[in-house]
Amino acid sequence: MWSCITDFFTYETTKSVVVKSWTIGIINRVVQLLIIAYFIGWVFVHEKAYQVRDTAVESSVMTKVKGFGIYNNRVMDVADYVTPTQGASVFCIITKLITTENQVQGFCPEVCFPCADVVLSSQLVCHAAFCTNWIPTGKCVRFNDTMKTCQIQGWCPAEIDYIKTEPMKEVENFTIFIKNSIRFPLFDYTKGNFLPTINKSYISSCNFDMVHHKYCPIFRVGDVIQYAQQDFMKLAHKGGVIGIKIAWMCDLDRGDEHCSPSYSFTRLDAMSQNNSISPGYNFRFAKYYKMDNGTDYRTLVKAFAIRFDVLVNGNAGKFNMIPTLINMVAAFTSVGVVSLLQGHMTAMPRCTLPTAFWLATGDM
Amino acid sequence: MWSCITDFFTYETTKSVVVKSWTIGIINRVVQLLIIAYFIGWVFVHEKAYQVRDTAVESSVMTKVKGFGIYNNRVMDVADYVTPTQGASVFCIITKLITTENQVQGFCPEVCFPCADVVLSSQLVCHAAFCTNWIPTGKCVRFNDTMKTCQIQGWCPAEIDYIKTEPMKEVENFTIFIKNSIRFPLFDYTKGNFLPTINKSYISSCNFDMVHHKYCPIFRVGDVIQYAQQDFMKLAHKGGVIGIKIAWMCDLDRGDEHCSPSYSFTRLDAMSQNNSISPGYNFRFAKYYKMDNGTDYRTLVKAFAIRFDVLVNGNAGKFNMIPTLINMVAAFTSVGVVSLLQGHMTAMPRCTLPTAFWLATGDM
Amino acid sequence: MWSCITDFFTYETTKSVVVKSWTIGIINRVVQLLIIAYFIGWVFVHEKAYQVRDTAVESSVMTKVKGFGIYNNRVMDVADYVTPTQGASVFCIITKLITTENQVQGFCPEVCFPCADVVLSSQLVCHAAFCTNWIPTGKCVRFNDTMKTCQIQGWCPAEIDYIKTEPMKEVENFTIFIKNSIRFPLFDYTKGNFLPTINKSYISSCNFDMVHHKYCPIFRVGDVIQYAQQDFMKLAHKGGVIGIKIAWMCDLDRGDEHCSPSYSFTRLDAMSQNNSISPGYNFRFAKYYKMDNGTDYRTLVKAFAIRFDVLVNGNAGKFNMIPTLINMVAAFTSVGVVSLLQGHMTAMPRCTLPTAFWLATGDM
Repeated sequence: MWSCITDFFTYETTKSVVVKSWTIGIINRVVQLLIIAYFIGWVFVHEKAYQVRDTAVESSVMTKVKGFGIYNNRVMDVADYVTPTQGASVFCIITKLITTENQVQGFCPEVCFPCADVVLSSQLVCHAAFCTNWIPTGKCVRFNDTMKTCQIQGWCPAEIDYIKTEPMKEVENFTIFIKNSIRFPLFDYTKGNFLPTINKSYISSCNFDMVHHKYCPIFRVGDVIQYAQQDFMKLAHKGGVIGIKIAWMCDLDRGDEHCSPSYSFTRLDAMSQNNSISPGYNFRFAKYYKMDNGTDYRTLVKAFAIRFDVLVNGNAGKFNMIPTLINMVAAFTSVGVVSLLQGHMTAMPRCTLPTAFWLATGDM
Repeated sequence: MWSCITDFFTYETTKSVVVKSWTIGIINRVVQLLIIAYFIGWVFVHEKAYQVRDTAVESSVMTKVKGFGIYNNRVMDVADYVTPTQGASVFCIITKLITTENQVQGFCPEVCFPCADVVLSSQLVCHAAFCTNWIPTGKCVRFNDTMKTCQIQGWCPAEIDYIKTEPMKEVENFTIFIKNSIRFPLFDYTKGNFLPTINKSYISSCNFDMVHHKYCPIFRVGDVIQYAQQDFMKLAHKGGVIGIKIAWMCDLDRGDEHCSPSYSFTRLDAMSQNNSISPGYNFRFAKYYKMDNGTDYRTLVKAFAIRFDVLVNGNAGKFNMIPTLINMVAAFTSVGVVSLLQGHMTAMPRCTLPTAFWLATGDM
Repeated sequence: MWSCITDFFTYETTKSVVVKSWTIGIINRVVQLLIIAYFIGWVFVHEKAYQVRDTAVESSVMTKVKGFGIYNNRVMDVADYVTPTQGASVFCIITKLITTENQVQGFCPEVCFPCADVVLSSQLVCHAAFCTNWIPTGKCVRFNDTMKTCQIQGWCPAEIDYIKTEPMKEVENFTIFIKNSIRFPLFDYTKGNFLPTINKSYISSCNFDMVHHKYCPIFRVGDVIQYAQQDFMKLAHKGGVIGIKIAWMCDLDRGDEHCSPSYSFTRLDAMSQNNSISPGYNFRFAKYYKMDNGTDYRTLVKAFAIRFDVLVNGNAGKFNMIPTLINMVAAFTSVGVVSLLQGHMTAMPRCTLPTAFWLATGDM
């Protein structure tokens, strides 16, 4: 038993011979250098392995669109063309409208291919080309002087959605005001996209600009679309989705001014461009009214819109003892190990391992 | 000093004896094999450690519901039963309505337990069972021939929300059209869920199907609910939340066709099923009208709906030198280290370490 | 060749001498102890390295606000003050309104700085201080007895948004009911924030409370705001965004009761507080009406609101063989390696490496 305890605290080292081989010696050192370089250059400087990182950023976005447009000789303001209205991180600016006024529940000819009355199982049925998305009554009725179409039941008159209309050009000059606050819960660090350097008068006048005003929180729609490499008129015609990305890459060891937002812009529904199937972005909604006698009627609106998604992502790092230690130990260990391995390799039977191995261990 | 420099470039290796012990020798090799197997099989092939991964996928989702239903002898179309209307990644299809028409600000008996006039501190007070969510006036008034209830102030008449109504059966046959574009910013790789193999005519006719049409972007509500292992009628009655998950697992080393969406479906508010407390999903909203004299009145709607959340997640990998190198070095090192350790272990005093250790190092 | 095979299975170990140096011996053991401590204490117990983790939690949130307020002598209920109405994870409770009734398309003086008629290039132009966000007609017209302002075209009368109004005090006592189901797809584990311990009667009566009712899913607005260290009246006046965070930290090895939600509250738009530029949160929307003759008119509403974002994050761990093995091997290896390195270090030329190195390897 006693021998065990002594054993336990005796120190046992390997007997070693010193070979005065410069070649191998140099290789040995070079490999060690490489490793040290790797750890210092990549692990520590580039990857910042001495920091703890927080990527679960808490963010809140508020948006406000400003500007006035004229559409069908009516002045449109925010309440008319922005939806949803809450000014959250996702919102649509309507650029084009196809409105069908005064729809009431009833019967009317559908807006579709001409039809003909045919007798099916001894009864008249309205027959038309593929076009059965409404509830048909089976009658073939007069649509206009030139043609008859199948009669349907529903909100009448039916929408004529192939009318060509021009989008609202003024949208290009509308401005989007973005207020974004973030918080890194791990470090309890809070910041907003109104940098301390920004004052009221600046905001009331500035316009975002990649070069001169990269921290101005007001974005001209036209600019945003341009930065996303899109053509405004095309987009306004068909509609689409634009992503406004706010990235917060923060090195909290380097003071507050090294934590500021960087904006970038992409078209999110990129597929729509190079795809003929259902290009663009549009949706339908209705405004409901009541006649004095209580019957409902509505205005159906097919809206072509540019949707903006404000996407916030963040990544903050701060010095911390634990990762630093772990990585330093790792570094030193590997330096030691390698030179050890080499010793081992040289002493190993040559034929056992593939050449790749020798290279990897820097020996040969 | 000079000796140092020479030292620096001399190479020092451990003196070693070759023991012709087959047992230990075999163990030694087996352990090495295991390690190699682990690195090749798990780290490289399974975990694809030679790739850099991008999991921060940018995605945009557009949805469009199609179909017509009949509810209370009225034909309902998209604008009537889908909310919010913007066709974003989260939308509700209303299946059941409890409408309270022509509410005006005023006084009326609440819809609740019968009440009695009691004298509290020498004044009449309306007394009823627990039911105080409205603003009471303190009077006990006639509700109908059979009972009296407390009078309240607010939008009158008060909603009677215990009426039994049937959900809109047609919803089962509605179709959801999903357009999803994704982008992996790290590789600037963009793709959409309309695969090149899909053409216009196919889309206009297809219906998603796990087996034959797994890339068709049109989903029948009934199918979706079935895939989520739910019963349509139950869901339509109580309402609920269904998740449509689109997963993009892309190996960008293997060409474009190895990056395609895979759809899956779950019920997100699973809790609601096996929980009696407030099952299902419903919400209230109002449509506002004005009389000629300017007084407001509204139609209060309690809507039971099926909410669909389209959740997109992605994960793309692409070959990259740095991780490959790091992992290869790691592999070779550990192979070397182990055989070294063994040597060491055998030469170590036996009693110092637990048996587990011997096993772990493959020696004994 | 044969020699190779024999070589392959022969076992080669390092010749070693046993130095009876207690100092180094003790250091050697201490270092080993440190490593073992690190692996057991930090890697296994603290970091739970023996588990696989799932952080991609699937979540669905339903919310319902209850309560009645009085604003401008009108009783407001959910349908009046909550928007959007769908009861999703983000919703606003309107606390203050500035309504502009009966707006019609037309011409009217803008609500702005007084103006003067000036002659520009031989024609009269309305000249006023900076205030050009509307579409001007160029005339300077009577606004009220005291001043004239530029005439504009649009929805008239123009909004007067500097009227002071009091927020709806009752909001403080409104309650938010939150239903949250989560699922960890990796383990197919589903749970909801109605714990089994909660029954119907409890829910109908309880109110969330950090101490006594930490699992009650009903939150008093006033409490939430207090927990977020905010002042209700200030918030109700200017508006703001409150985050309700639900964290699911689950150790699935320790049974169902060790997986329960923990609620926390912060102000998300923290920036707004200490920033004079556009504090708070407000937005505009309109209700549209029609006269008998078909002309549209609307009620423009500028709403100050408290927005609530329910943010869910989860992290579940469960025992798994692979990570356990990997980490155990890592542990044992490093123990071995270190004692090896030491042996090596002591035998190394002293001058080659920095002292830090000696320390790191625990030798000297």
